[in-house]
Amino acid sequence: MRCDVVAIGTELLLGQITDTNSQWIGEQLAAVGVDSLLQVKVGDNLGRMESVLRRVLADADAVIVCGGLGPTHDDVTREAIAAVMGAELQPDEQVADVIREMFASRGRRMAENNLRQALVPVGASIIAQTRGTAPGLICPVTIDGAQKVVYAVPGVPHEMKDMVLRAVLPDLLSRGGEDAAVIVSRTLRTWGESESGLNERLDPLIARLDEVGNPTLAFNASGWEGLKVRLTAKAATEADAQVLLATWEAEARALIGDLVFGVDDETMEAVVLQLLRERGWSLGLAESVTGGLVAGRITNVAGASEVFRGSIVCYASEVKFQVLGVPVGPVVSEAAAAAMARGAQRVLSSHVALSLTGVAGPAEQDGMPVGTLCIGIAIGDEVHTRTVRMPGQRDQMRQMSVITALDLLRRTLLAS
Amino acid sequence: MRCDVVAIGTELLLGQITDTNSQWIGEQLAAVGVDSLLQVKVGDNLGRMESVLRRVLADADAVIVCGGLGPTHDDVTREAIAAVMGAELQPDEQVADVIREMFASRGRRMAENNLRQALVPVGASIIAQTRGTAPGLICPVTIDGAQKVVYAVPGVPHEMKDMVLRAVLPDLLSRGGEDAAVIVSRTLRTWGESESGLNERLDPLIARLDEVGNPTLAFNASGWEGLKVRLTAKAATEADAQVLLATWEAEARALIGDLVFGVDDETMEAVVLQLLRERGWSLGLAESVTGGLVAGRITNVAGASEVFRGSIVCYASEVKFQVLGVPVGPVVSEAAAAAMARGAQRVLSSHVALSLTGVAGPAEQDGMPVGTLCIGIAIGDEVHTRTVRMPGQRDQMRQMSVITALDLLRRTLLAS
Repeated sequence: MRCDVVAIGTELLLGQITDTNSQWIGEQLAAVGVDSLLQVKVGDNLGRMESVLRRVLADADAVIVCGGLGPTHDDVTREAIAAVMGAELQPDEQVADVIREMFASRGRRMAENNLRQALVPVGASIIAQTRGTAPGLICPVTIDGAQKVVYAVPGVPHEMKDMVLRAVLPDLLSRGGEDAAVIVSRTLRTWGESESGLNERLDPLIARLDEVGNPTLAFNASGWEGLKVRLTAKAATEADAQVLLATWEAEARALIGDLVFGVDDETMEAVVLQLLRERGWSLGLAESVTGGLVAGRITNVAGASEVFRGSIVCYASEVKFQVLGVPVGPVVSEAAAAAMARGAQRVLSSHVALSLTGVAGPAEQDGMPVGTLCIGIAIGDEVHTRTVRMPGQRDQMRQMSVITALDLLRRTLLAS
Repeated sequence: MRCDVVAIGTELLLGQITDTNSQWIGEQLAAVGVDSLLQVKVGDNLGRMESVLRRVLADADAVIVCGGLGPTHDDVTREAIAAVMGAELQPDEQVADVIREMFASRGRRMAENNLRQALVPVGASIIAQTRGTAPGLICPVTIDGAQKVVYAVPGVPHEMKDMVLRAVLPDLLSRGGEDAAVIVSRTLRTWGESESGLNERLDPLIARLDEVGNPTLAFNASGWEGLKVRLTAKAATEADAQVLLATWEAEARALIGDLVFGVDDETMEAVVLQLLRERGWSLGLAESVTGGLVAGRITNVAGASEVFRGSIVCYASEVKFQVLGVPVGPVVSEAAAAAMARGAQRVLSSHVALSLTGVAGPAEQDGMPVGTLCIGIAIGDEVHTRTVRMPGQRDQMRQMSVITALDLLRRTLLAS
């Protein structure tokens, strides 16, 4: 199966917004083993849209069209698809009712043009709208005697993603002869190994997955979000897909389990907060090199206030000495990191404290090279320290320091 | 003139990386008044690349091809363009010498396949490489009797941007009959007005620019980087372009000057640090709702340590009371913000202190609704406070709070 992607919107061509929709769709198609060989951005222009659809359908079995389903006169995706199908657009009364109800339930007046969203090419079927007012469309077309299909989904990312996972991928796979009504992914989030290192460790598993073809495995490097390993399974039922995933997740964990800190949407900071919450422990920070980034990450988790007390961002050395009681001397050292953690525990009245001191550059400091990170962790009366070397320029060094220090705290908590 | 864009790379189709290059190119083309009506992503496949180029050139006057100029066997952009031109590829000895010298000067051994990057279709001219090893190409083609052109630039963003601005846009405009050897942009960075509000204020200017056509004006919303207004001028010489820009920048500032905090790459945090540096004043922070984000932004500026002492991230109310000496009571109020700023000045020994306390949600606090932000600014013995309502969800509310508070500090410093 080959499914190409067409993203609709003049604002995409003008560079006013980034087309992340086709990237996401490309990732999903690859995960279920469907080729996507051409992805096109085209403006809100009926003639050009129709011509692009015809060209893409000459080569591909299917195309996902993303955007242009809104209520205004420049939303012409429905018209373009109808032209390619050689079909009329007709109002679908059920869709129209849903749209009317959505407006009524929000107590808003519905402008008549919203009913444009209820127009459906004759012969197309509906992907029910659950989040927005526009339904998606599944539109069979015959091109040079071959049966092909155009899927239309909204350009709003969360509406698009919902419809692609719920309806488009299963329909696409069933047209390819696969009875895969359900597609489920699981992402193992890791830290502590490079992408090539992860790849090497997973090599035996990847070889076996290549043979069976389902689930698929993909890597995704997400900077200070960690390295992600994603398994995607297709099956006839949700239960079958979950069994497949569970089996292969166990195999993957046997190879890289020590690196996995979370699953799916679990961030490192959420995992650390949860470990603290389970133990009934509060957290304080003392940040020098990261200058508040760790605190910023932690406080982005809703509910952080149950556990997190605060951070002493001690950028100037005198703040380390005067506020945290660090002994006057070199401030990029494990001894300084230990004193910072102790000081944060005391000043912030926390049971646990994490400290970071290091050299982000441009110049070395205290005889330590750029990229040096000293981490201190105080838990009750214990203190642990570690020195690591971070890669990269200032910004990257600081971001990598955040996740590295949080991962060390996570491992230390697990061992406590 | 119509110039379409083709981004090359299988990893783009698989969704492993986002195609930000064609977005950036689309923005530049729009800024100089060139239409870009189709933008395509295609994989590293010679046949498909050639076929895409032919199709795009059937409609467009020019196409910019981005990527696939590397040294490995799957970098086939040169071959695809040569096929469309009906020309041979020949090694260019000058380019080969530059590549050899680049390796020699870095003390690295050059693998022979690097000389693939010196292959040039007969009839094409070179865009000299200044940053990477691959040169760009300007390749005239005749399609159905019409003279058209293919530009090839590397996929590495900073190499691509350099070549597009330095060579591709001027060549493109001269083919369109414009003597515009130089294209220069200036960005006014603003805060304090919505995009539609900015648009409204600039309306008379936009109408006049629409008439003269040069420079062009574009908006760019960049979240907590502020709202950008970009002027792009084309001219025969750099001096002419600068005069044009200066003239129209002055007109723009007459309408929105009170909102402009910086120009081009100047961030709000860099501007604030510079104002403090000029006055010889140090800065301390007390952050509650933003939980370290302000400190994280400020310490991302190299040289921040000359001015910035640190931040007390006082997420728990007791930290506000015990460390900063805030009177026990409601902590989302102007009185609390003032006490936080005073406390930060004292604890961090800074001349200036900025404090932020507010409600990011999910629930209201101290009877204040989600989105409330109280800002305190202490300068020497003076204290200023302000309460504002921020929009959006937790993450957006926090980010908007950062730039809003820094902008208030900037205005207060300017008035001091």
